[in-house]
Amino acid sequence: MAVTPKIAQYLRESAPATPCLVVDVDRIEQNYRRLKDALPLARVYYAVKANPALPILARLTGLGSSFDAASWEEIEACLAAGAEARDISFGNTVKKVSAIRAAHEAGVTMFAFDSEPELLKIAKNAPGARVYCRILVKNEGAEWPLSRKFGCELEMARELMMQARDLGLDPYGISFHVGSQQTSTAAYEGAIARVAMLFTDLKEAGVKLRMVNLGGGYPVRYRAEVPAIDDFGMAIMGAMTQHFGNDLPEMVIEPGRFMVGDAGVVSSEVVLVSRKSKDDPVRWVYLDIGRFGGLAETEGEAIKYAFRTPHDDGADGPVTIAGPTCDSTDTLYEKSNYRLPLALDCGDRVELLSTGAYVTTYASQAFNGFKPLTEHYI
Amino acid sequence: MAVTPKIAQYLRESAPATPCLVVDVDRIEQNYRRLKDALPLARVYYAVKANPALPILARLTGLGSSFDAASWEEIEACLAAGAEARDISFGNTVKKVSAIRAAHEAGVTMFAFDSEPELLKIAKNAPGARVYCRILVKNEGAEWPLSRKFGCELEMARELMMQARDLGLDPYGISFHVGSQQTSTAAYEGAIARVAMLFTDLKEAGVKLRMVNLGGGYPVRYRAEVPAIDDFGMAIMGAMTQHFGNDLPEMVIEPGRFMVGDAGVVSSEVVLVSRKSKDDPVRWVYLDIGRFGGLAETEGEAIKYAFRTPHDDGADGPVTIAGPTCDSTDTLYEKSNYRLPLALDCGDRVELLSTGAYVTTYASQAFNGFKPLTEHYI
Repeated sequence: MAVTPKIAQYLRESAPATPCLVVDVDRIEQNYRRLKDALPLARVYYAVKANPALPILARLTGLGSSFDAASWEEIEACLAAGAEARDISFGNTVKKVSAIRAAHEAGVTMFAFDSEPELLKIAKNAPGARVYCRILVKNEGAEWPLSRKFGCELEMARELMMQARDLGLDPYGISFHVGSQQTSTAAYEGAIARVAMLFTDLKEAGVKLRMVNLGGGYPVRYRAEVPAIDDFGMAIMGAMTQHFGNDLPEMVIEPGRFMVGDAGVVSSEVVLVSRKSKDDPVRWVYLDIGRFGGLAETEGEAIKYAFRTPHDDGADGPVTIAGPTCDSTDTLYEKSNYRLPLALDCGDRVELLSTGAYVTTYASQAFNGFKPLTEHYI
Repeated sequence: MAVTPKIAQYLRESAPATPCLVVDVDRIEQNYRRLKDALPLARVYYAVKANPALPILARLTGLGSSFDAASWEEIEACLAAGAEARDISFGNTVKKVSAIRAAHEAGVTMFAFDSEPELLKIAKNAPGARVYCRILVKNEGAEWPLSRKFGCELEMARELMMQARDLGLDPYGISFHVGSQQTSTAAYEGAIARVAMLFTDLKEAGVKLRMVNLGGGYPVRYRAEVPAIDDFGMAIMGAMTQHFGNDLPEMVIEPGRFMVGDAGVVSSEVVLVSRKSKDDPVRWVYLDIGRFGGLAETEGEAIKYAFRTPHDDGADGPVTIAGPTCDSTDTLYEKSNYRLPLALDCGDRVELLSTGAYVTTYASQAFNGFKPLTEHYI
């Protein structure tokens, strides 16, 4: 894992003010192609929430990608980047009526749901839409698991899909999400088995589903190695053919982190290196970006970013790494055994690698008066 | 605990688009006066980070308040509201050199630190400044504790204050922070005892400190009762006179939450009420504001806001309460036994009470495409 040559050159020559994110858009194109190679039968719906910047959406539109949007505002961003409404899925199972209506009027025809009230909202405000139901699946193996907030039990999904048909909607398919930064290919296999059961049940009830939405979750390398995307591709295709045989449904994937994660680098400045007492072996390293400046996924030390400093050849020692605000929860890593060079000092620039996903939009608008990080797409 | 009459009228007559925060600035003035009554000898430095809105800073400036700023940007906000630089304390112990220099040039003379490197930065970039050292104290009893991120051990504080004198700085005093939403008056008493020991030690070493900064932490009533501000005033004055006798130093307090918390109400809309399976007794209630829309202090369900709905007279049942984004961590309350009316439905307006503090600036700039909440100061 390293910084792409383009990013390295940009940081060297431009030394942009910190904190900032630099994204190599060519790398995103490479990731898109790797994903298509690994899962050629799947249609790619980029999870816009991972990074909704216009240069990313425009490049992906040009490559033929579709888009998974979480809100009407994200749909607007896709349309502004040149995407067609028919290539946008409104993937949030929790939507305001006004958002459903706006999407429908703009030509969006694909909507997610996981409850009866949401289904009724869609039937009324986006008549005839293709709908897919999200089911609950296990998130074991995910470093950023998704708990029970989204999805419903299988039995409820079955009844809701029949109801969808009765409401004049198009009962299109089933979706699941194995959790973000999912490092186990088995998670997809288990979920596909559940979906296949539902397909069979519903077929017997006269509802022929046509699509399986495998969600996202494909991991990026941070501190630790992760399985290659080809491993996920093989596991998924193996499970699909095992359970669906020759009657393979359409396949949808919603990569976010995988598409943009390793294409970005956060550049930050060390504000202070200190100790709590003279003989404390642990130094506190305070950066000018923290949990409220965009690094929200360090909550609970879940996502463990790798660091690059100007002193990486020298001796290192244990550190606690924190952000710049007066809030103690703005501490990135205290228990994950991070070590940084002993030579690290106030004013040094530090890079956080593979930070292209889930950083920019998370940034607080002004906590402690600090503005969001700036963004450079090259 | 209730909505102030002014806020109730504003919500009724204006029905502002949700999510939004409505703040009764008159209530902030009342809180300022209550605090002055409870601790007449203390000088009030409002913790700007709690809510840096111009109408609040302007009102407090008019009342004679001083300000505790966490960044150069917050200092600028105070100056823009009419505050004098001499009434601003730069209270973050972690500051960029450029920020120290800008503050010094603007006339700010009071700076916090808790380490030697920071002290050296201040000595170089704000020569002659009044400095105070933050020490570590116990945060037991705080609902939003501050861990070890800020402050240093007593022995180090002693040496640093002597060094401050040798560097040509004014060794002004000692600060501590007992943690935010501190519900135990004993926390202040223990901390004051530690500070008094340090005053004595340093006096013997030839350094006469003049100020004790008692920090903030004074609680607001959310779901549960908290001690009255007068109880804190009495406990603090009791401990101060016990330990300092007739030689009382200047006293500084840094209220944030107490000053603005109960002056604000967040108005939000119910986006969806659903169940995960037909027989699940727990409903999921999704609001149009969540952890990334400003309610960051619900992390770990630490701060437990009280809710008001249009159906509060009817029967209620158990709920999980979540925000509108596709992130599962955007769940407000799952384990705190919240109950909401059975009649609650999509489209209803729900008020979150005492949300004037630590809400607006925390809001993400655009996570999932959602814009920050709007703000109304009346």
